[in-house]
Amino acid sequence: MSQTTTDHAHPVLIAGDWRPATGTKAFQAFNPATGETLPDRYPVSNWDDIDAALTAADSAFALLQAIPRAKLSEFLNRYADLIEANTGPLVAAAHLETALPVLPRLQVGELPRTTSQLRQAAKACTDPSWRMPTVDAAGNIRSVLEPLGPVLVIGPNNFPFAFNGISGGDFAAAIAAGCPVIAKAHHLHPTTSRLLAEVAQQAACDLPAGTVQMLYAMDNDDGLKMAADARLGAVAFTGSREAGLSFKKAADEVGKPVFVELSAVNPVVVLPGALRERLKPIVDETVTSALMGGGQFCTNPGLIITVADSVTDEFAQALADRYGSSPPATLFGSTGARGLDRSVKYLQSAGAALICGGGPTEGAGFQYRNTLLRVEGTDFLKSADALQTEAFGNATLLVVCQSISEVASLLGALEGSLTGSIYSALDGSEDDTYDQLAPILARRVGRLINDKMPTGVAVSPAMNHGGPFPATGHPHFTAVGMPAACRRFTRLMCYDNVRLQRLPELLR
Amino acid sequence: MSQTTTDHAHPVLIAGDWRPATGTKAFQAFNPATGETLPDRYPVSNWDDIDAALTAADSAFALLQAIPRAKLSEFLNRYADLIEANTGPLVAAAHLETALPVLPRLQVGELPRTTSQLRQAAKACTDPSWRMPTVDAAGNIRSVLEPLGPVLVIGPNNFPFAFNGISGGDFAAAIAAGCPVIAKAHHLHPTTSRLLAEVAQQAACDLPAGTVQMLYAMDNDDGLKMAADARLGAVAFTGSREAGLSFKKAADEVGKPVFVELSAVNPVVVLPGALRERLKPIVDETVTSALMGGGQFCTNPGLIITVADSVTDEFAQALADRYGSSPPATLFGSTGARGLDRSVKYLQSAGAALICGGGPTEGAGFQYRNTLLRVEGTDFLKSADALQTEAFGNATLLVVCQSISEVASLLGALEGSLTGSIYSALDGSEDDTYDQLAPILARRVGRLINDKMPTGVAVSPAMNHGGPFPATGHPHFTAVGMPAACRRFTRLMCYDNVRLQRLPELLR
Repeated sequence: MSQTTTDHAHPVLIAGDWRPATGTKAFQAFNPATGETLPDRYPVSNWDDIDAALTAADSAFALLQAIPRAKLSEFLNRYADLIEANTGPLVAAAHLETALPVLPRLQVGELPRTTSQLRQAAKACTDPSWRMPTVDAAGNIRSVLEPLGPVLVIGPNNFPFAFNGISGGDFAAAIAAGCPVIAKAHHLHPTTSRLLAEVAQQAACDLPAGTVQMLYAMDNDDGLKMAADARLGAVAFTGSREAGLSFKKAADEVGKPVFVELSAVNPVVVLPGALRERLKPIVDETVTSALMGGGQFCTNPGLIITVADSVTDEFAQALADRYGSSPPATLFGSTGARGLDRSVKYLQSAGAALICGGGPTEGAGFQYRNTLLRVEGTDFLKSADALQTEAFGNATLLVVCQSISEVASLLGALEGSLTGSIYSALDGSEDDTYDQLAPILARRVGRLINDKMPTGVAVSPAMNHGGPFPATGHPHFTAVGMPAACRRFTRLMCYDNVRLQRLPELLR
Repeated sequence: MSQTTTDHAHPVLIAGDWRPATGTKAFQAFNPATGETLPDRYPVSNWDDIDAALTAADSAFALLQAIPRAKLSEFLNRYADLIEANTGPLVAAAHLETALPVLPRLQVGELPRTTSQLRQAAKACTDPSWRMPTVDAAGNIRSVLEPLGPVLVIGPNNFPFAFNGISGGDFAAAIAAGCPVIAKAHHLHPTTSRLLAEVAQQAACDLPAGTVQMLYAMDNDDGLKMAADARLGAVAFTGSREAGLSFKKAADEVGKPVFVELSAVNPVVVLPGALRERLKPIVDETVTSALMGGGQFCTNPGLIITVADSVTDEFAQALADRYGSSPPATLFGSTGARGLDRSVKYLQSAGAALICGGGPTEGAGFQYRNTLLRVEGTDFLKSADALQTEAFGNATLLVVCQSISEVASLLGALEGSLTGSIYSALDGSEDDTYDQLAPILARRVGRLINDKMPTGVAVSPAMNHGGPFPATGHPHFTAVGMPAACRRFTRLMCYDNVRLQRLPELLR
């Protein structure tokens, strides 16, 4: 983002109204395809704005407890309808700010995914089952999951709709749980966020003011102070490891539930037997999964682990060819492009050899060459910490091990990831190998996958978009999949000997 | 504890064997009734012991995944049987080390509670429902809660059986979840813990060595290093706020699930209408709950909130009389007695007046006078942080407010507690007051109680022994109540496109 003055800066959404921000700084976003600054100015909120939003959210939370859940359900459905009615301007804004293709990605992929999530959350509002109501009539004790309080949702750069703080999975889950949301728009797509927030406000007309609020930006210190504020019930963050860890620390220190999704290399083990059976489809799947959307997915397969074999050589060569011949990616911003370049160079300094790509293109915008790196298994093990650094974008590290036991050691040296995949022969000849590797990999991931790449996170009730640290901050919870994702924003509440008429209806 | 040499110190339980500890320090416990040092010497483990226990637990965890859950169930049932068979020596040791009465507390209260918890956990081992298996057949995606890995369980001083790291609720829940346990015995009851561990080892004969291990003590730094170790899946701590926060910090920094139960004042609002109807029974309940077991309960009602009224004066007078005429408490140790005295003096320095008690008795042992303090609501609000300091033991702070809105302000100024109670008139005349206060109190507690004191935590599936920080570290989970308590030691695991024969049986 580029710093600018607050003259004509857009207002922020606080307590049901669009009001001028009280801060003195503003920023503008970029068109990633050209690198040009976009005209709209957005404010950096100071503590006065944050304080007002927190107070409004706190009041809204108290009021929401007395409102039928069906009202929240209606809001989410209405919001989904309005997003669909505004598909044109929303997709245009998101395309301009992210350079993601209108078709299929934004218009028939991400936007429908977003409205579907909102509608699934609408169902979850009135579905009592996931709240785990438990009645011990003999003991006159009852418990149920209840909302935590206002949630600060900080969305990432890579999904302008589906993970946007004002419309994405965390937003939908928090609302469905009964929590007001203060969204922080991502500074790389403020106009998309503003358009969404305008529609959200319209849909939320009959909810307490302060149920849905949005700020565009704030200084780091103010953000951390906000995360620790007693008026806030929880924090949901998706983004960089560094920023996420600082929010996690701020919330942990005051014992506030915090759900961070940080980084993941999403290891994919490709065994020789699988390659001998299905070389071409596996190459296709790898290239598509690794380079789609500029590789800017939290489930991007950043680490491909293979075993030395002639077919593995063919696989490596085919990847190199396809990476070289595929168009370079346009990344979301200059920070992302610089970060990717830094990570690629860091992997090289740790012992990885550059097979193709590496570095930005000469053209305009934030373009980066499709990058394939390679390292031997023994060398990986010597610098396992460094070589599992996430290179967020269109870069992949191929590891070639000399044996299955080396693969096992390597998997044992990995930190937590969202996913781990194993491609093995379909004829059963690699089943023993699978049985040896899968338990080691499973302990390090939130989703174990067979014969498939990790991108494409289905919005299924059985999904886990989560995993051991540092993939996320708590491996018990998923960020995708209704109604499970709602559980993050709840706490267990018990009613002991509470008189019948005073109990929540669900527990009577 | 008193420092001593390691000559003749008891061995530690590591990897299935009782082996001499490798450290150079040892300690002895006390008889709280006399203050005399007890003869048995117990080792302070150094890192070598801890390292060996972690490695053994890690191996045991891998092996446990391939063992039928029924084996764990059999272990827990056998352990419960053996505890019962050893009631005599166990109760004698616990009485000597804690001064808790044999009857009813230890023999017919806590020991049966402990074996009941173990047997309920045995049922949870093979009950799939709480693991929330979810199958999306169309998407070929499945998820289930799976064990986190070895759990370090650090038990408190106040329940030598029911919360002991080697036999209590956390132990039982972790085992039922499929996690090996490394227990740290409490230094105030090492012999009780040793006897339990001996029985546990006997019961665990056919489980992987390292499923059940115990150390007696370790230096703080080693304990924190252990909490952060990658071989450990989770930490469960019950005890002092200061120690608990240091474990929480160590685990949080590496993103390891940590469940701490720290401190709670457990506010009890006693409205005048309730007193007019039931003065005598409420006095009885208050005195029993506040002074029982020396008040050394995590759910001790430390803060009684009333409204100025002639009947409130009667209530205050009756409490003072009863506190003065009840025998003083024998506390668990000199540290606890000093800590209580410090807290009582701190409350006085913050504006509370001493009504009766305050200070130790002249006699032998760790005896402390039943202590009642009083403060006006307006003064409480001026020093709300200081005046909600937990005074762990037989001390109670009575607050007298001038109005219901002052009570509301006071409740709003409280931090998280395990419980919150409201006594109100049964004739409905205080229902509006209840409706005003209950939502404020509910947001700050894990269990809302009507017309009842908070002590006596039923082991019910609907129980929540948990609550907002600093009562615990995460308000989503309960430490008491099967099978819910088991969920703490699990993570969500998803199987995506995993071939049928490779799936856990539960998900096929």
